[in-house]
Amino acid sequence: MLTAVIMAGGGGERFWPVSRRERPKQLLSIGGKKSLVQQTVDRLLPLCGAGGIYIVTASHLHDEVRKQVPRVPQNHIMTEPEGKNTAPCIALAVAHLRAAGADDDLVMAVLPADHAVLDDEEFRRTLERASRLVREPDYRDCLVTIGVRPTRPETGYGYIHIVDLRELDGLRFYRVHRFVEKPDRRRAEAYLRSGDYLWNSGMFIWRLKTIERAFEKHLPEVAEAMSRIREAVGTPHYWRVLRQEYFRIPSISVDYGIMEKEERIICVPASFGWDDVGSWSALGRLLPADRAGNVIQSEYVGVDTSNCIVYSDTGRLVATVGLRDLVIVDTGDALLVCHKDSVQRVREVVARLRDDERYRHLLHDRSGQVYEVTATAGARGA
Amino acid sequence: MLTAVIMAGGGGERFWPVSRRERPKQLLSIGGKKSLVQQTVDRLLPLCGAGGIYIVTASHLHDEVRKQVPRVPQNHIMTEPEGKNTAPCIALAVAHLRAAGADDDLVMAVLPADHAVLDDEEFRRTLERASRLVREPDYRDCLVTIGVRPTRPETGYGYIHIVDLRELDGLRFYRVHRFVEKPDRRRAEAYLRSGDYLWNSGMFIWRLKTIERAFEKHLPEVAEAMSRIREAVGTPHYWRVLRQEYFRIPSISVDYGIMEKEERIICVPASFGWDDVGSWSALGRLLPADRAGNVIQSEYVGVDTSNCIVYSDTGRLVATVGLRDLVIVDTGDALLVCHKDSVQRVREVVARLRDDERYRHLLHDRSGQVYEVTATAGARGA
Repeated sequence: MLTAVIMAGGGGERFWPVSRRERPKQLLSIGGKKSLVQQTVDRLLPLCGAGGIYIVTASHLHDEVRKQVPRVPQNHIMTEPEGKNTAPCIALAVAHLRAAGADDDLVMAVLPADHAVLDDEEFRRTLERASRLVREPDYRDCLVTIGVRPTRPETGYGYIHIVDLRELDGLRFYRVHRFVEKPDRRRAEAYLRSGDYLWNSGMFIWRLKTIERAFEKHLPEVAEAMSRIREAVGTPHYWRVLRQEYFRIPSISVDYGIMEKEERIICVPASFGWDDVGSWSALGRLLPADRAGNVIQSEYVGVDTSNCIVYSDTGRLVATVGLRDLVIVDTGDALLVCHKDSVQRVREVVARLRDDERYRHLLHDRSGQVYEVTATAGARGA
Repeated sequence: MLTAVIMAGGGGERFWPVSRRERPKQLLSIGGKKSLVQQTVDRLLPLCGAGGIYIVTASHLHDEVRKQVPRVPQNHIMTEPEGKNTAPCIALAVAHLRAAGADDDLVMAVLPADHAVLDDEEFRRTLERASRLVREPDYRDCLVTIGVRPTRPETGYGYIHIVDLRELDGLRFYRVHRFVEKPDRRRAEAYLRSGDYLWNSGMFIWRLKTIERAFEKHLPEVAEAMSRIREAVGTPHYWRVLRQEYFRIPSISVDYGIMEKEERIICVPASFGWDDVGSWSALGRLLPADRAGNVIQSEYVGVDTSNCIVYSDTGRLVATVGLRDLVIVDTGDALLVCHKDSVQRVREVVARLRDDERYRHLLHDRSGQVYEVTATAGARGA
């Protein structure tokens, strides 16, 4: 059996104005009928069962997460008092698993809640292969990361430089030479050509003991917090301890804090059709386009418009004239118009609104619309 | 005294989605507190008095026009059963003036209802000079057009090629060599340099007899319709006759049907700060811009945005990221995003909606918003 920990605490700021503090990206449906967190749970159920799925989310999202995935046991939904990136999030899950009696050999997969996967079967086969690997005597102390075979010279992802192909009972994997930050276009093209670079999916698999040792070695502060939280689970002091520890521990990613420092990292390659749904331009990859390259999810009239993404959850008519490479997102109380080259900078809008204390456009859409981006919305062609 | 005929029947399609069939451009306030037709009437009152102002509009706009300009006598508001361009519109006014007993020497100014004028005093001085001219024995049979001194190489206006400067009692005017269609950029720059080309404002002044003769000579069908309508004024047959005649007569502009064919055309030059408010890009000229060249009339957050026009009458927040040279117009039931180079093509959106019988976005904004574009709207800087 595999135990899955879903990280579902993100703010989804780059998906503003549809993504809001009270209903961020992972709780939205993008390109399907179900939300990303629901899809993630569904994808894992055949592999882990409901009892093998744990979710870490933010306090203010707890109730919505519970509502969206009722099959996950209530005490498997953990909340963080504040977001401190992925390392503390994973440590919190480890603390709870240990408190619940998990032993050293429990195999744990860590998965983001807000990614898109096309081939669920292949996804499960990949996790299975990786979990098999950390049960092998030679690899039981390894941290395993899932690397996705690139299909385009993507500059929005980090890469894994793989070396030293190995094979074990038909299972192929690599040693990780190093993790590479988001490259420029020229480098991304070279990575794609070389075949030696995979996309860093942010999905990990390891034995419980292995990740605990890694925390102790590379992030001792986090490891100490982890053990204090573990001791407090089930006591009346739990929330106070949790808040205290989270206040103290640094905000740090598992990639930077552990993976890049650890020696024994293995990469299992995957080809299950993956997208990190990192920004509005992802809709251009995930949803079908018309002949002019436009992805339209609204009432629409287009004149001389190509390669644009138009999304509305208001039922309003969107008309575009003479446009190229733009993203238009129309919600009840806010409208975003953004160049595709600038989609990462949407978070600057969110930051500006926060700085100006104009919170009403951050918390929730006052129009009361349902925030679902569905492929079946009434789109009209250009 | 001068008699003014205001042409107020236009559809304002290039100002969709704010301009709608039931409240087109001339009935909207753009850059001021009053609508364009109200501003036009106010501008003429000191010169013509309320009793000297006539308005020709469309049947379905009659009530709104009356409401907006209550000082204009009710029987001075004429309606056309259908729009047939400016020549029939002027003929209708002539028919009514004659039916009301006007004599050959009545001096009549024809003015569009939907233009912006900065200097009302200078505007009135110009009309006064022009009306003085057509009372002079040597010029009483001339058609006078107002030519605006160009201030930029505008490619959106027609031009008047002027020759043969004359002077009469300190009043300077020209003979019109020819009317020129909208030029390309290179030509517009040459026109601006030469000083021999003025913008064709579409404002005319003539004696009643002169324009009647011009209709008889150049547009005999319209002249005949004009005389039949004149005979029907005040009879029970009026509306039937009006509909019949309008059904028959050709749709033709006074520029094309008369001005370009007539010999005795005089141009009085003007410098009263004029704009035909022809498309959304006019807002960029009429309203103040921020340092990045953005004209903002909405709740707004801008990141890396320049030379854009953002207008909302919904109170919604508009956020822009990485944009140049765009027009964004946000109304209750429809949103327009358009490149500044394509503002003329907004009418293609309107045509498409009409062809598709999607009338609800053409008639009126179902949100029930007040359609006022005011310079005092709560704009926030970029």
